Amino acid sequence: MKLPLIAITMGDPAGIGPEIIIKALSQLKTYSLCRPVVVGDASVLEDACNITHRSFKINSIKHPKDGKFKFGIVDTIDLGNVEMSKLQYGQVSAMCGKASGEYIEKTINLALSNEVKATVTAPIHKEAFRLGGWGEKYAGHTEMYADLTKTKHYSMMLAHGNFRTVHVTTHVSLLEACKLIKKDRVLDVIRIANDACLSLGITEPKIGVAGLNPHAGDNGLFGSEEVNAIEPAIKVAQKEGMNVQGPVPADTIYSKAIGGWYDIVVSMYHDQGHIPMKLSGFQWDEGKNNWKTISGVNVTLGLPIIRVSVDHGTAFGKAGKGIASSDSMIDAIKMAIEFVNSK
Amino acid sequence: MKLPLIAITMGDPAGIGPEIIIKALSQLKTYSLCRPVVVGDASVLEDACNITHRSFKINSIKHPKDGKFKFGIVDTIDLGNVEMSKLQYGQVSAMCGKASGEYIEKTINLALSNEVKATVTAPIHKEAFRLGGWGEKYAGHTEMYADLTKTKHYSMMLAHGNFRTVHVTTHVSLLEACKLIKKDRVLDVIRIANDACLSLGITEPKIGVAGLNPHAGDNGLFGSEEVNAIEPAIKVAQKEGMNVQGPVPADTIYSKAIGGWYDIVVSMYHDQGHIPMKLSGFQWDEGKNNWKTISGVNVTLGLPIIRVSVDHGTAFGKAGKGIASSDSMIDAIKMAIEFVNSK
Repeated sequence: MKLPLIAITMGDPAGIGPEIIIKALSQLKTYSLCRPVVVGDASVLEDACNITHRSFKINSIKHPKDGKFKFGIVDTIDLGNVEMSKLQYGQVSAMCGKASGEYIEKTINLALSNEVKATVTAPIHKEAFRLGGWGEKYAGHTEMYADLTKTKHYSMMLAHGNFRTVHVTTHVSLLEACKLIKKDRVLDVIRIANDACLSLGITEPKIGVAGLNPHAGDNGLFGSEEVNAIEPAIKVAQKEGMNVQGPVPADTIYSKAIGGWYDIVVSMYHDQGHIPMKLSGFQWDEGKNNWKTISGVNVTLGLPIIRVSVDHGTAFGKAGKGIASSDSMIDAIKMAIEFVNSK
Repeated sequence: MKLPLIAITMGDPAGIGPEIIIKALSQLKTYSLCRPVVVGDASVLEDACNITHRSFKINSIKHPKDGKFKFGIVDTIDLGNVEMSKLQYGQVSAMCGKASGEYIEKTINLALSNEVKATVTAPIHKEAFRLGGWGEKYAGHTEMYADLTKTKHYSMMLAHGNFRTVHVTTHVSLLEACKLIKKDRVLDVIRIANDACLSLGITEPKIGVAGLNPHAGDNGLFGSEEVNAIEPAIKVAQKEGMNVQGPVPADTIYSKAIGGWYDIVVSMYHDQGHIPMKLSGFQWDEGKNNWKTISGVNVTLGLPIIRVSVDHGTAFGKAGKGIASSDSMIDAIKMAIEFVNSK
C-alpha cells in the first residue's frame, strides 16, 4: 500500500512556516510514514533551505501524485505568488496575506478532489490575510475550511500526546461564550468529540465534559448553564450510548485528562481548553526569555476532509532566522497520518 | 527570638482535617520553624493519632502561649464541641459543621488579639457548615474572615512553589464574573498582588495581568473588558511605580509564570487561575483512580491578619482512613511562617 499523500500549506511566507516545514522534512521518519507535498512558493522554500542550512532540492510539481517523495527533495505545488525582492521576513504585507489564502484554497481543493488524503496548515498572519483580501470572507483558516467544504457543525480540537480537548465556543468574547452554551451545541460537540476519538482508533472513547462556572456551578448556586444546557446534553449523549461524564469542575478535569482518565475533554470556551493545553505543550525558558518547547496541534473536527494545524502563530519576531522550533509541525504531520491510517 | 505562634483550625471533624494536621505535626521541621497550636477538639485529635498510628500526646491548653511546643505533643485549644459517639467520618452533620465554624471564629479572635501571628485553616464542608448554623451569614471561610476582621478589599491567592495567582472574581457565575471586571476592582487586586509579594520578601514584584477574553480580546475584536477596564487599571498601577505587564492572553501567561517570568499573575475569574494552579500542584494517578499529589495553598490577601489554607476540600471519601496526603497542609504552614518572617 502506498503511504498517504499529505498536503502542507506554507503559511504566511514572511513567518516561520517555510522554515519549520523544511525542518520537519529533515526528519527521515516523515518520509517513511507519508508522502508530503508542500503547497506554497518554490523560491520561498529555497530561501528557507538556506536559512536552515539544508541543501534540499525544491521539486515543483503540478499534481501531488507527481512528487518524488524522497528525503532531500521537497515536492512543491508552486503557486508562484511571492516576489522574492519584495519579501521581508517578519513584516505584514498584502502580498504574503494573499498568497497564504491561496495556499489554503488550493490545498482544500486537493483534499476535496481526493488528490491528497489529509491537509496540514502552517500559520497565517491575520492582518496580512485581511490585507490580502481574504478577511472580508473569513476570520481565518477554520472559517475558510468550513465554507469551502460546506460544513456547518465543526469544532476546534487541541491535542498534545494523549491529552485532547474540543471546544464548544472559540473566538468570541467570554460574555458571548456564556450565552452560546446551549444544549444542542454542547450535544453536537460531544458527538464530534466521540467521532474524533473513533477516527483516531480509540474504540471506546471516554469523554469528560467541563462545567462552565466555578465548581461546575455547585448545583446552580453559581450559574445555571450546567443545569439547563450541559447536563441535558450529557444525558442525551449517554442515551445514544456514549461514555460521557460531567459536568466536571474545570479546575480538576484537565489534571484528570492529562493523568489518563479521559480520552477527550469537551471545553466550554477558548481559554478553558487552551490554558491546560499550552501548559501541557509549551515551556517557557526564563534565562533565554523565550519558549523552550512549543508542541501540540490544532485539528478542525467535523469537516469532510482532514485538517491538522500547528498550535502557534507566525512568530514574526523569529522568522527568517532558522531558530523556530518545528515540534508542533512534526506533531501535526504525525496526527494527520494517524487520522488517515485509522480510516 | 521566639518562633512564631501559628494557630491551625481543625476543619470539619468528619473530614481529613484532623489526620492531615497530625501528619503535618509529625514533621520534626515544623517545630523548628514555628510554635503550632491546633484549634479544635482534643478527642477528635486523639482519634486522628490512632488513625495515623502516631503515639502523640494531646495537650489541652487555654491560651496559645501555654503550649509545650515539643515534637510529639499536640498543643490544642480544645473547644470540646464534638461528641465522639456521634462522630461519623465522611458524613455531613450539623454538629461537625457548627464545630468547624467555632474553630474558625476562635482562631480569628486569637489572631486579632495578637495571641498568634498567623492562622492556617483545614477544610470545612459547606453543607455541614450551613446545617451548623453558619451558612446564613457566611458562604465560607473567606467571607467569615472578611466580616470578623472588618475587611472590604480582599482577594484569593493560590500558590504552588514560586507560581502565584490572585483573583479579581471568584465564587460567582462566569457571566457575572465578566460583568464584575471593572477598572477599580482590577486595580485593587493589582495592588493586593504587589503587597502580597512584598510581604513574602519579593522586593521588586513582577506582576502579569491576564486578559479576560480569548487572545486578550485581540484589540477589542472579542470583548471590550481589556480596553475599558484592564488596560486603564494597569496604566494607573504603572504610574504608581509597580512593575505590571498586560493584559497578556490567558493561554500563555501561566506557562510564562510557571517558567519564572512573573512573580504573580492577576487572574480575572476562578477557573482562569484555578486550572493552571491545579495542573501545577495536582497529579492524577490513573492506576489508582485517585490523586497522587495534591499540593499548593490558598491565601486570603488584604486581611489585617495572616490566613493560609490548604488547597483542597474535606475529602469525605478518604476521611478516617489515614491515607490523605498532608502535602498541602505542610505547604500552608510553611507559607504562613514565610509571611510572619517577612513582616
